[in-house]
Parts: sequence; structure tokens; C-alpha cells
Amino acid sequence: MSLSARIPALLRTRTTQLPALARLTTIACSTQNARTPEPVSDASPDPRPHHAVVSIAGQDRTGIVNTFTNAVQHYKANIEESKMAILGGDFAMIVYVSMENPQDAGALEAMLNDKLPGFSITLRTTTAPAEEHPEQPMWTISVEAPDQPGIANAVSQALATHGGHVHEMETETNTAPFAGYALFVLNGRVSMADSELDNISEALTQVEEKFGASITLDQISRK
Amino acid sequence: MSLSARIPALLRTRTTQLPALARLTTIACSTQNARTPEPVSDASPDPRPHHAVVSIAGQDRTGIVNTFTNAVQHYKANIEESKMAILGGDFAMIVYVSMENPQDAGALEAMLNDKLPGFSITLRTTTAPAEEHPEQPMWTISVEAPDQPGIANAVSQALATHGGHVHEMETETNTAPFAGYALFVLNGRVSMADSELDNISEALTQVEEKFGASITLDQISRK
Repeated sequence: MSLSARIPALLRTRTTQLPALARLTTIACSTQNARTPEPVSDASPDPRPHHAVVSIAGQDRTGIVNTFTNAVQHYKANIEESKMAILGGDFAMIVYVSMENPQDAGALEAMLNDKLPGFSITLRTTTAPAEEHPEQPMWTISVEAPDQPGIANAVSQALATHGGHVHEMETETNTAPFAGYALFVLNGRVSMADSELDNISEALTQVEEKFGASITLDQISRK
Repeated sequence: MSLSARIPALLRTRTTQLPALARLTTIACSTQNARTPEPVSDASPDPRPHHAVVSIAGQDRTGIVNTFTNAVQHYKANIEESKMAILGGDFAMIVYVSMENPQDAGALEAMLNDKLPGFSITLRTTTAPAEEHPEQPMWTISVEAPDQPGIANAVSQALATHGGHVHEMETETNTAPFAGYALFVLNGRVSMADSELDNISEALTQVEEKFGASITLDQISRK
């Protein structure tokens, strides 16, 4: 395991630390005892063909992720994708899981409600991962602007009005160290028809002017 | 707005595109018509002191983000932080919003249920952003391993057993182009007591050996 401390002063004073660091670094490439990975092959059937989207929210404490992953492992399910954050005093997570059996979805939801009392938990069965609009190219979008109510709405309106389809998005607000105001930051991926690029660019330029924003679109692929 | 195409062949053939690009680039720094940002000051009261965590999941289509941000703007709320993804055929999002009035939380939830029928929607009131365990240093953690059921559980177990507190986490599984198997990738932030660093390092090293994983801890701050 690679372990580095950007502010290592404290660690350096602990004489037990350095041997441990050296040992961990050398072990990082050791896989002789590792399990053989499951091969990816179109020929073999998907061992976990059933999928669900789970959302979990509740008062934060240490160990919630582990409570969730324990339940997933109990049903031999697999976590395909997840996003988690502490929001205020709450833990919040969305997870995409794959399962062997369709009835595992309800059983997993029941176990989560049992293990996380007081939490808001939803589980929806859904499909396997889809091709991401292969007929439309995918773009990254990044936005920075002084934070103010309406900026996220203005950006999403500019996209949605012209058929821009948001595939992934994260936003946060940070206090800009020297500016004296909070900064809104958005990063995401969006697909759109080539015929709508001019319209979306024009609409986003209007958002820049109105909100003092800086917006970048960057084409990822011709998918 | 800055707009770049990594595969610009198609765009180059459209003669209307280049003037638009030039115009957009120059406008990127234009803020003369922008609203004055709200100043961040400890002296003025928080204009939106009430907070909620919203989760939304439902069948994906174009415009869901915009439906949500419209509802948020209707109640003069602000999106403080959000994470969204398409998971299988479903749209999923967790959002942290701030509001002027406590009764706006219930009204926002009702509007979302009205505007997004068939969706799984939860809303929980929560606290303002907290100091992130200022008594404990924060670390980034990154994990790469051949994907297999149990890897996420093993990592979270190694952290939780020794009091490691996960503050933010994202996982995904990608098909490794040359390896012939799917790759599990985790990135997150975790706080832990200095006294537990050796124990957590040891536990994560065992995960590396068992799963053929590569794990990195990197100290961010002494917060």
C-alpha cells in the first residue's frame, strides 16, 4: 500500500512509522495470494444479471458504508457504481448493485431497513448498464460561478431546452479564498445532438453573461 | 464559453462553427452584466439557514435535473452540493439544499412528488455543514483491484473496524482494456485518529494481498 503524508512532520517524529511505510510500499505490487479475477467474456452468462438502484440517507456516524457493504455481500451482490457524501449532518449514498437472483432485491432492502433504523432507504429494480446514447456525442461540462440561487437551474435549463441529456453531474459550493464570496462549481457529462450544439452554446453563453460564470464544454467522444 | 472538441473533424466542416467558437471564448471573461455575488460574511445572518438532504431515483429521461432545479428555485432554495448519475436505466441523485424557511422542506418534497410521478423521492431535514472532524486528520483513499464481490466490503471493513470515518466516496467498475477483467476503482476521503493509522494501514495491506488490490492513502490536512 502506498501511503504518503503531505504534512509529514508529525509522522516523522514517530519512529515506528518509517519501517511500516517501507513495508507497505513494497507490498503494493504483491498479488501472489490474490484471488483470480472473474474473466469478462461475452460467451459466459452474466453471473449477476439483475440490477437495482439503492438510495440511503440518515444521520451520519462511522461505519454506515460498512453496514451497507455487509448487506450487499450477504446476498452475494456486487456494487457496480456508487456515490456517497456527508451532507450537513447526514450520510447520503446512491448505489447501483447487480444480483444473482431477482428476489434478492427485496431481501436486501428489508435487511438495510433492519440494519439502518431511522434511515430513508429506497430500492428500485432497473436494467443492466445501457449504451450511453451511442447516436449522440458525449461532452464534459464544467461551470464556475459566484454562487447564487438559480445558477444550477440556469445551466440545466440551457441543456434541457435543447435536448442535452445529463449522464453524470457533481456540484459543490466553496468559499473562494480571495474573492470573498462562495464559488459554485459543476462538473458533469452530457450528450447532445450535433444539430443542437449551436443552440446549447448560445444558451450557455447567456448563462455566463447573466451569472458571471465561466463554462467549458469539451467533447469526449463521437459515441 | 470555452468549447473544445477533441475530435473536431466534424465541427471543422461546419463553417458556422468557427465564428461562434471565437465569440464564445472572448465572452468567457465578460462579467459586466453579471449579478453581484452574495458576500460571504460572518456578520450577516445566513439567508438560508435551513437544510435538507434530498434523494431522487426514477426512470431516466432528458430534463430531470432541470425539473429538480426548477422546484428548488421556486422555493428560493439553493443547491449546496449534489451528486448525480445514470445507473442502469435509472436517474439517481443526492442533493444538499439550503432554504429560507423551515416549511419549504415539506413543500419542496410535495412539489417534487408532483413533478416526478413514479420516482422514489426522500427528503430529510438536516444541519448546516459541519466542521469535518477537526480533531482528526483527513486522508484521501484510492483503491484499484480486479472487480469481485467483497472488495468494497473488505475496504470499508478495514476502515470501520478502526474508526476510519468515510466523508466522501465514489466507486465504479470499468473493463480494463488489456487485462480482460473488470477493474474496481474507489476514490474517497476518510478521517481517522493518528493512533489508528498503523492499524488501518495493516488492515488495508491485508486487503491488497487478498484481492490483488493497490491502495493509496494520502494525507490532506491536519484538520
